[in-house]
Amino acid sequence: MSAVHIAGVGMTKFGKNPRTLPEIFCQAAELALAESANPEVEALYIGAMNPEEFTGDSNIASQIVDALGITGIPAIRVETASSAGSAAIFAGFQAIASGCYRRVLVLAGEKMTQLSTSATTRILAEVIDKRERQCGATMPALAAMITEKYRKKFRLSESRLENMLCSVALKNHLNGSRNPLAQFQKAITRETYLASKFVSTPLRLYDCSPITDGAAAVILTSDKTDVRLSGVGQATGPLSLQGRDSFTSFPATKLAAERAYSMAQISPLDIDFAEVHDAFTPFEIISTEDLGFFPPGKGGDAVLNGQTAIDAALPINPSGGLKARGHPVGASGLAQVVEATKTLRGQTPMKLAPKRGLTQSTGGLGTNNFVTILERSEAPAVQNLWSPKPSAPAAPHRHSRSVRIAAEGIIETFTILYVTPDGFLPPLALALIRDRHGALLMAQGEDDTQLKIDQEVYLRRMGGVYFFTVKSQLQKVQQAFKKLFRRRAPVSSKRNIRREQK
Amino acid sequence: MSAVHIAGVGMTKFGKNPRTLPEIFCQAAELALAESANPEVEALYIGAMNPEEFTGDSNIASQIVDALGITGIPAIRVETASSAGSAAIFAGFQAIASGCYRRVLVLAGEKMTQLSTSATTRILAEVIDKRERQCGATMPALAAMITEKYRKKFRLSESRLENMLCSVALKNHLNGSRNPLAQFQKAITRETYLASKFVSTPLRLYDCSPITDGAAAVILTSDKTDVRLSGVGQATGPLSLQGRDSFTSFPATKLAAERAYSMAQISPLDIDFAEVHDAFTPFEIISTEDLGFFPPGKGGDAVLNGQTAIDAALPINPSGGLKARGHPVGASGLAQVVEATKTLRGQTPMKLAPKRGLTQSTGGLGTNNFVTILERSEAPAVQNLWSPKPSAPAAPHRHSRSVRIAAEGIIETFTILYVTPDGFLPPLALALIRDRHGALLMAQGEDDTQLKIDQEVYLRRMGGVYFFTVKSQLQKVQQAFKKLFRRRAPVSSKRNIRREQK
Repeated sequence: MSAVHIAGVGMTKFGKNPRTLPEIFCQAAELALAESANPEVEALYIGAMNPEEFTGDSNIASQIVDALGITGIPAIRVETASSAGSAAIFAGFQAIASGCYRRVLVLAGEKMTQLSTSATTRILAEVIDKRERQCGATMPALAAMITEKYRKKFRLSESRLENMLCSVALKNHLNGSRNPLAQFQKAITRETYLASKFVSTPLRLYDCSPITDGAAAVILTSDKTDVRLSGVGQATGPLSLQGRDSFTSFPATKLAAERAYSMAQISPLDIDFAEVHDAFTPFEIISTEDLGFFPPGKGGDAVLNGQTAIDAALPINPSGGLKARGHPVGASGLAQVVEATKTLRGQTPMKLAPKRGLTQSTGGLGTNNFVTILERSEAPAVQNLWSPKPSAPAAPHRHSRSVRIAAEGIIETFTILYVTPDGFLPPLALALIRDRHGALLMAQGEDDTQLKIDQEVYLRRMGGVYFFTVKSQLQKVQQAFKKLFRRRAPVSSKRNIRREQK
Repeated sequence: MSAVHIAGVGMTKFGKNPRTLPEIFCQAAELALAESANPEVEALYIGAMNPEEFTGDSNIASQIVDALGITGIPAIRVETASSAGSAAIFAGFQAIASGCYRRVLVLAGEKMTQLSTSATTRILAEVIDKRERQCGATMPALAAMITEKYRKKFRLSESRLENMLCSVALKNHLNGSRNPLAQFQKAITRETYLASKFVSTPLRLYDCSPITDGAAAVILTSDKTDVRLSGVGQATGPLSLQGRDSFTSFPATKLAAERAYSMAQISPLDIDFAEVHDAFTPFEIISTEDLGFFPPGKGGDAVLNGQTAIDAALPINPSGGLKARGHPVGASGLAQVVEATKTLRGQTPMKLAPKRGLTQSTGGLGTNNFVTILERSEAPAVQNLWSPKPSAPAAPHRHSRSVRIAAEGIIETFTILYVTPDGFLPPLALALIRDRHGALLMAQGEDDTQLKIDQEVYLRRMGGVYFFTVKSQLQKVQQAFKKLFRRRAPVSSKRNIRREQK
C-alpha cells in the first residue's frame, strides 16, 4: 500500500456565500491546486449531501470537472449524509493507497443559506428514519433526546448539563473568533448563550451548528509531503433511535476510530488535537468519549475543566468546530481535514506544535461515521498498513418494525421541539417510548406537561403516528373530570377513559 | 493488485414495482447474497442517481445497511447521474483490487414510476447544463439534436436513419421478450414503431427507454469464481452541448473504453457481446462505434444488417438493453453487469458460448461514462494490471460562457420537442446555434418552420434565453408584412425588423 500525503488544501470563507454551488466548489479547488506544487490531478472525488434539493444541482461530479476545465479524468460523487466530506477523503485515500492513482483532487461542499430555515430543516430531517420523521422529529429533536438520556445516565443536574453544553459553545466560538474562515468571528458570553432560545429542550440555538455555505478541497498524493494521512476508518450504525441499544454514545464512531487507530498503529493517547463533529454541543462531548479521549460520562467534565481548550493538553475543535466555523453539511468532514492540516503546519493560532491530529465526522444521527488521522511527516515513519482482515461481523440490530405495540410504556427519553418542520406547530413534545414488550417507538405528546425519563405513559395510534399521554397527567384530567360532574365516571377500561377525554 | 471476481448477482423484475426503494434494494441484495457461497460482506457500495427527489430517500447508504441488518460495515453511496450503477461497481472493483476488502456488496437502484412523466422529465433534465435546461431542453431533446447531427454527418436520408433506429428498437424488444426480468416482454413490429409518437424529432417514443423501478446487486470478491471483472474504465466529458467539439460520438466512452481495454490487455476484437447504454436508440449505434466495434458512421449499417442480433457475431444488448429491459436510471449500469454475468454463465438465451462481455454506461449526456469488461474464468489467465500511470492530460474544452454572442448564426443541430418539461408548451423548436464568432449556444425557435442543419438564423436574447428565427422565414414574414400594408417598411437595422414583427 502506498503512503498517502496531502499536497495542498483550500477552503472558502464559511457563511453566506453569494456564488453558485459550482462556483463555490471551484473556488476551494483553485485554492488547493494553487498551493500544490503540481496542479495536475488524475481523478476527482467529490462529496455533497443533497445538492439536488438544496440548490437543484444534479450530476455534480460532471458539472465540476467541466467547470474546472479538466474533463476526461474520472470523477465520482460520494455521499454518506452529513459526513459526505469524509467519505470523499476516504474514497480518495483508498484510490491513492491502492496505487490506482498518484494524485487526486478531493472536494466537498454544500450551499444552504438561500432556503428558509423550515425548508432546510425538512431537507436535513430526510436523513433520519422515516417513521420518526413522520412524528415531527428533526435532527435537533433526536439530538436533544440523546442529550436528555445522557443527563439521566450520568446523573447530571439540569444546571450541570447546561454548564457543560455552554462551555462547549463558549470554547468553540472563542476558537472560531481566531479563525478567519469561520462563519462566526465573535466570542460569545455565558449570558448570550443563556439568552438564546430553545430549539428542542435541552438544546438552545447556541447548542446547534448554523446553516452555512462553503466548500473545502484537499489534494492527495503518493509523493511525500509535510503532512501524511496515516489512518482512516468508517463504520455505520442503526438508522432510527427506535432501533438502538445505546443512546449515549455512537457505536459507529467507536468502530471507525478503532479501524483508524489500528491502521495508523497508534492509540487515543497519541493524538495531540482533534476536530470533531459538534453539529450539536453534546455531540462534541459524546465524540470525545467515543474516540477514547475520556471515559464515558467524563467528556463534559473535561470541557468544564478547560482540558479541551486551544492552549490545553488536548485541544478539541481549535478551528471553532461545526458550531462556530459553520456546517455546510457535505463540506464539514473535509473542512476538518483542511483545518487539521493547517494546524499541523503551524498555520493556526494553536500554541502547541502538534505531531498528530484526528478528525471525526458524523453522517445522519451517528449512522455513517468516519475517523481520519493526520500526522506531520517528521513523525517517526510508521508503515501504512491497510488492514485487509475482514471486519468484525456486524451485530445485526433489532428491528422493531412489525412488533405489536402495547398501549402503555415508559419514556426512554424526550424533548420539546421549538423549531418544527413544515406541518407541525411548536412546541411539540416528542418522546422515545419503550412499551411493555421492550419495543421502542417515537411518539408525539398529547399535552405539554412536565416530562421525565422513566415516566409511565399511555399510547395510542392515529394516522400512522403514535401519541402518548403521561399517566399522572391522565389521572389529573380524570380527577378534574370527576369533580366537574360530581359523579363517578363509568370507567371499565383504559380505552374508555381515553374516549371520555375527548 | 488482486484479481476481482463475481461471487453472486441479483436483480429485481424491472418495471413498475409497488415496493419502497429500500425494499427494492433489499430484494436485489438478498438474491445476490443467496447466490453467493458466503453471505458475509465487508463493505457496501451503493449507486443511485437521485433518490432524494424521486422518492424522498436521503442517507441511502445508511438506510440500506440498516434495512439489511448489517450495520457496522462501511457503506458509501456513489453517484455519477445515470451511470451511478457503474460507478458503484467501479468503486467496489477498486476496493477489492487494492486489497482493502475481500468481499463487498455492490447495489444500484432507482424508483421512478410513482411520479408523473413531466415530474420525471424535470428530474432527469437536471443532469444537463443549466443554461440549456433554461431553454426548455430535456435529455430526449439533446439526444435528438445529436441524432440529427449524426444523420447529417454521415449523409443518411431521413428514411435510412429511421430504418436504423427502428432496427435497434425491434432487436432490443425482441431480446427483451426473452428476458423474464425485462420491463417489456413483447416483441414489437415495424408498424408499432412507426405509429409511435415523436418525443423530440427525429426520436419517437420507441426510441426512448422507459421510466422504470428496479435494483441490481453484485457481490465482488478476491476469491476465484467463474466470472472475473478484468477491466474497468471511467472518463468524463463536457457537460453542455454548447461546450463540445464532437456531436456524433462521446469522447468519455472512447477514453473509458481505452482504459478498460488496456487494463484487461485486450482489444475490441476480443469482445463476444456487449450491453450498451441505449437510453435512446441512436446512442446504441454511437456507442458501438465509440467502443471500436464498428467504424464511425457504420454502427447503423451493422444493426440494419443484423450483425448485432442475439444470434449474430457480436450481439449487442442481448438482455433487451435499457430500451426493453427498462432504465431505472441509477440501476442500469449494474444491471448490465448482472446480465453480462448471466450470459457468460450460459443462463440467458444467447446461443453462443461467449468468453468475454463488455458493459458500457453513460452518465448524463455522455458526461460520465464507464466501460467494464467481464470474462469467464476459464479464459487464459491475464494479469490484472491496474494502470498506475497518470491519465493523459485532459484537453480543457472551450467555455463559451462570457463570449459576446453575434446576432446571427447557423443551425448546428436541432429538434422539435413534443414532450416538454413543466412550463414549456409543445411543440418546442430547439436548436444549437453557432454564431459568427464560432460560439455555440442553445436557443428556442420562434416559429415552427422547417428547420435544417446549416440554416442561417437571427438571434435575440430575452429573459436569459436565446431565441432564433430562420432567415428565410423572416424574409417571408417581411414580404407578407410588406404586401399587407402595400408600402415599404422603414427597415434601418435588423433590430427594427424584429420590432416590427411583433
